[in-house]
Amino acid sequence: MKVLIVGANGTIGKAAVNEMSGEAEIISAGRTNANLEVDITSTESIKNMFEEVGEIDALVCTAGAAAFESVSEMTPEQNLVAVNSKLLGQVNLVLLGLDYIRDKGSITLTTGVLMDDPIEKASSAAMANGGVRAFVKSAAIELPRNIRINNVSPTMVIESEEKYGPLFKGFKPREVKDVGLAFKKSILGAQTGQTYEVY
Amino acid sequence: MKVLIVGANGTIGKAAVNEMSGEAEIISAGRTNANLEVDITSTESIKNMFEEVGEIDALVCTAGAAAFESVSEMTPEQNLVAVNSKLLGQVNLVLLGLDYIRDKGSITLTTGVLMDDPIEKASSAAMANGGVRAFVKSAAIELPRNIRINNVSPTMVIESEEKYGPLFKGFKPREVKDVGLAFKKSILGAQTGQTYEVY
Repeated sequence: MKVLIVGANGTIGKAAVNEMSGEAEIISAGRTNANLEVDITSTESIKNMFEEVGEIDALVCTAGAAAFESVSEMTPEQNLVAVNSKLLGQVNLVLLGLDYIRDKGSITLTTGVLMDDPIEKASSAAMANGGVRAFVKSAAIELPRNIRINNVSPTMVIESEEKYGPLFKGFKPREVKDVGLAFKKSILGAQTGQTYEVY
Repeated sequence: MKVLIVGANGTIGKAAVNEMSGEAEIISAGRTNANLEVDITSTESIKNMFEEVGEIDALVCTAGAAAFESVSEMTPEQNLVAVNSKLLGQVNLVLLGLDYIRDKGSITLTTGVLMDDPIEKASSAAMANGGVRAFVKSAAIELPRNIRINNVSPTMVIESEEKYGPLFKGFKPREVKDVGLAFKKSILGAQTGQTYEVY
């Protein structure tokens, strides 16, 4: 079993790698420090990555950036960070990667708690998350060759509490291992169209 | 009370106009047949519209296009129709229009049933709807000057059954008047961050 993890070097990506490393051959992709370099905001870069990787059983994306700014101050240009990365970066991995995924394979994208439980200055990230979740639910009913698609929606993880804790006051942090398990369930399970909330 | 309705000429827009016309001065905007011309895929066009309109009490958008194609066939370029129109068209109306909205004013955007109850070839539209819903929920907690924001999510309306019925088999069509009422509730009520589902 061959699993491609885009964003494998981040906190969430590493948790997915940890859960899957005993189960599959992992190919990591990311902007740096990965088996393959990819910039998900570029369709050319995504195409090149898939050409290099070839056939896979599972595609995972834990990558995606967003700008944090209040709606009063945010410009359309700032909002494009989330659109081009967290939203379209992930959706384009699906559109351009589908042909490389084997029959009965799976796709697992990453959303996040901000779409359900908002904090200040995070509307752009919430928008991208909500877009990915709805895309996943809809795509699941029509993917060919029994390919499944889900998304994992993590809250702040304990491992990021020092960095993000001040933004997520009153949120219960979860262990990043639990987020990794959700990816494992998506990849090795049989469900499709799901949002695995780790809140 | 001054209400700007973008997309006033469409089926849903007309229903919003009908419900609000006894309550407010309506300014219609759209690509054609409206008081003001606007192309919501252009930030310049949106800016020009707001400069012409000046201060308003309520902003309503019932406009937004999407390409319909299966995930297997859809290109990143086709997906951009929904991104630039239904998603960013609506979000940019908020980002660029906020300063024109009076204290205690309101914003009402339009999503749709496809984000909750998918049909084939509609993943791009679902994505845009889900993005707008999450943006609204998040923006609601931080809009300044007691400005509220909601979205109305209609299913297929009876008035469109002849055209869209074959795509929505088994869906219960609703009267477009009920969709109009949801806009009225959003504009004249006191709630914020809501998704008014008319399913």
